[in-house]
Amino acid sequence: MKPVLTILLFACVLFCKTAFSQTSFKVIPLGVKGGIDESNLSAYMIATTGSNDYVCLDAGTLHYGIEKAIQAKLLHGTAEEVLKKNIKGYLISHAHLDHLAGMIINSPDDSSKNIYGLDYCLDVLKDKYFSWKSWANFADEGEKPALGKYHYTVLTPGIEMPLQNTDMQVTAFSLSHGNPYQSTAFLVRHNEAYALYLGDTGADSVEHSDKMHQLWQYVAPLLKAKKLKALFIEVSFANEQPDKQLFGHLTPRWLMSSLENLASLSGKEALNNFPVVITHIKPGGNREQVIRTQLKAYNPLHVKLIIPEQGKLLTF
Amino acid sequence: MKPVLTILLFACVLFCKTAFSQTSFKVIPLGVKGGIDESNLSAYMIATTGSNDYVCLDAGTLHYGIEKAIQAKLLHGTAEEVLKKNIKGYLISHAHLDHLAGMIINSPDDSSKNIYGLDYCLDVLKDKYFSWKSWANFADEGEKPALGKYHYTVLTPGIEMPLQNTDMQVTAFSLSHGNPYQSTAFLVRHNEAYALYLGDTGADSVEHSDKMHQLWQYVAPLLKAKKLKALFIEVSFANEQPDKQLFGHLTPRWLMSSLENLASLSGKEALNNFPVVITHIKPGGNREQVIRTQLKAYNPLHVKLIIPEQGKLLTF
Repeated sequence: MKPVLTILLFACVLFCKTAFSQTSFKVIPLGVKGGIDESNLSAYMIATTGSNDYVCLDAGTLHYGIEKAIQAKLLHGTAEEVLKKNIKGYLISHAHLDHLAGMIINSPDDSSKNIYGLDYCLDVLKDKYFSWKSWANFADEGEKPALGKYHYTVLTPGIEMPLQNTDMQVTAFSLSHGNPYQSTAFLVRHNEAYALYLGDTGADSVEHSDKMHQLWQYVAPLLKAKKLKALFIEVSFANEQPDKQLFGHLTPRWLMSSLENLASLSGKEALNNFPVVITHIKPGGNREQVIRTQLKAYNPLHVKLIIPEQGKLLTF
Repeated sequence: MKPVLTILLFACVLFCKTAFSQTSFKVIPLGVKGGIDESNLSAYMIATTGSNDYVCLDAGTLHYGIEKAIQAKLLHGTAEEVLKKNIKGYLISHAHLDHLAGMIINSPDDSSKNIYGLDYCLDVLKDKYFSWKSWANFADEGEKPALGKYHYTVLTPGIEMPLQNTDMQVTAFSLSHGNPYQSTAFLVRHNEAYALYLGDTGADSVEHSDKMHQLWQYVAPLLKAKKLKALFIEVSFANEQPDKQLFGHLTPRWLMSSLENLASLSGKEALNNFPVVITHIKPGGNREQVIRTQLKAYNPLHVKLIIPEQGKLLTF
């Protein structure tokens, strides 16, 4: 083939690839709720577009969510195969049961992989869950005998680490979740694209903390440069919940207030139509509907609000 | 009314009551599986016929099972109302997560009630679950502050205790579940009728234990006298599972062998057509079907084998 033709063909392939794969990440919510319903607790499989090598951001519900995703043809094979082959690791934001019960319950069927987290979170996994008293110790540290299926990978705040057997990296940041109890934000990177997942957290002013502000300082330049593709953040309670009874959680009002803090660093324009995925809504009475209404009613930065559903694909 | 008529009417009412309420207990399975599926883990609501004051035998899955039972019109109101009003207490056989995750996850929505168990089980609840690190301490002992919604009621093996706010009593017995790890059998009584629920356990000869034999010695006279109405017992694995990999569980063959030990104390006739509810079958591949087939294929005592289903009423 003549060189000119080759170059033209190459340029065409490059154009098509760019035109038809605008997204960087795909996310399969395995569970989205902030409690009560054991079949639908916080867990989000994330991979890069075109890959089937996922990690799981929190792991409240696995099996039931995987079954739903298989029914929706987002995943293929049996639930056990997906668990073993497609989930390459777990990123656990904090050690409350609704964020990791699925991982514990499914561990006998699982394959060898890493559990990523900040030290205080992994310490609770060692001491309280994989302790032989609550569950067999499938990990590689803690109460003996350690069966060694899971390897604890301690993350250091602000230091990026590779997510093994995937094409992604992660940087962790500490969050306040009912001060002094801590939670974690995970900034997942693929090349120049980022997705940010926050575990349960309250607003800085309620928590008497500056941890969310510190996180915003880190990610504001990425948001401004359009490298940050999506933000996953919790809204557990409606605006009517008194601050003293938030237990380290956000309301629609506190979410918007926190995002305004981010906007003060990134510029408001950067948040216009920016995808904000609302996680961890606590079921109970008509709270889910009230929160949806309150979020829509007051969205001064015009972020793109997304309420995820179990087994329904998200792309960014 | 003349005395003779009054007596006749009374006799008639008594006859009708006896004729139309032969059963003593009703059981609503909220979850029946031995792992993996977070929406269907061991939990059995039991009450006396005609009462809506239940206790829950283990509490692996609550909310999702209650929803199923409401759909089946076995329970009425919302799941939260059922949780708060109809479940008067929890009897936890042992502290493995698949037997109590539902209770922990649902605790923020629950009402004040008792958690019954042997001391080693309640100690794990205190130390590992309601510890503030894994979950807020909703109980009345352990890590401070103790929120006090649940009251730990320590049972002593062989000593009967009332099940508060119900018309039932319970006697607990220690079981071996991967010796030296212990589990519990609960013998529930209403007047002269009994139901026996065994938590996870292995056969005595595999466990190098005599705990099941001791339990059979206690209940054999009740079985013989037809006061024992049903037995709930686990079969986790198929016969092909090597004894060394049973991890404190039963197979169809080990179940029948254990029942033959019971028959040696009660007489074989007492087990003929006696209801044996098979709990805790571990999902995976075609194991569930294999276990059903193996149970039917070798049932030398002709017990009435019952495979329970989530949200499907059982009466005894």
